[in-house]
Amino acid sequence: MATKSEKTREAILNTSYALFAEKGFKQVTMKDVCEATNMSRGGLYSHFSSTSLLFEALLQKITEKDALGFQERIEKKDSATAILEDTLNRMEDEMKHPEASLSLAMYEYAETVDSDLMERLNKDSEKKWKNLIRYGIDRGEFRDVNISGIVNVILFSYQGVRMWSRIIPMKPETFRLIVDHVKNQLIGG
Amino acid sequence: MATKSEKTREAILNTSYALFAEKGFKQVTMKDVCEATNMSRGGLYSHFSSTSLLFEALLQKITEKDALGFQERIEKKDSATAILEDTLNRMEDEMKHPEASLSLAMYEYAETVDSDLMERLNKDSEKKWKNLIRYGIDRGEFRDVNISGIVNVILFSYQGVRMWSRIIPMKPETFRLIVDHVKNQLIGG
Repeated sequence: MATKSEKTREAILNTSYALFAEKGFKQVTMKDVCEATNMSRGGLYSHFSSTSLLFEALLQKITEKDALGFQERIEKKDSATAILEDTLNRMEDEMKHPEASLSLAMYEYAETVDSDLMERLNKDSEKKWKNLIRYGIDRGEFRDVNISGIVNVILFSYQGVRMWSRIIPMKPETFRLIVDHVKNQLIGG
Repeated sequence: MATKSEKTREAILNTSYALFAEKGFKQVTMKDVCEATNMSRGGLYSHFSSTSLLFEALLQKITEKDALGFQERIEKKDSATAILEDTLNRMEDEMKHPEASLSLAMYEYAETVDSDLMERLNKDSEKKWKNLIRYGIDRGEFRDVNISGIVNVILFSYQGVRMWSRIIPMKPETFRLIVDHVKNQLIGG
């Protein structure tokens, strides 16, 4: 069971997600986080001593949760097609919520903070996807595609949409088309 | 032949491109443009009265030049494969220059200025690509793909790369993989 401290940490991360999505990285201050979480300065600082550390913990949490979900299902010998479909459905849902996109915050963080975090997270995502696709090919469920090629298309078209959905109004059809393209590549039409 | 005024306008657009790519949209002032172009305030304002108008003219110029190139070659009955390859090569070259990406500037412009310009430009790009792919299919050069699907994948994976290449160091191999994926979809491996 989560301790009280862990629960508070979770609550801070959840609340600050919304702040970073709305304002980007540079414009969020520790004072904003105090206000949004209804915490004292001392209380907040005992968990995170800067918005950088907070943002890093947030991104790490999101990426790890994702990767863990993949890995557990692969170990349980779940069908690769089912894992793929669930993941693409979730990505499609996320694309429908531009207000929850962290694109700008990630951009500003990378511009402001000297760290290789974004690179590491990107590599983790890449690895996670490569594992799934290799697993699907090995099981004979996926076509024998160029793995690196399709992984880059998945990651960057997703990121392109996450950013552009904040720039222009986008139709749900667009998200569906991208997801279908990926599905089609891997399991055929 | 271009008049002197047209040449000045071109020079302003070229110089401000670099400013917007470097600083985004919000941080570029008319004073910056005066300094970078070595022009007086009066001289600059006789061409553009705000950074919004300047940025809009810049994006319009880029998109129109692109679309015109496609249209002319289609009218000349050039091979669709040649047009595709030239365009993908150019996109690949662009991807190699994150410092010249206008991603952040477009984001900030859309956030700051109430205009449907970005939407119109996106539609223009979409139309341009759809025309080329339909042309290639009609000529029997391209496979009978889902046109909207592949167009969205092209546009958004490009945009995803343009943005992420400012966030993390990216390998030329990544650009090649994306371009090859598109080529493969349309003309086969």
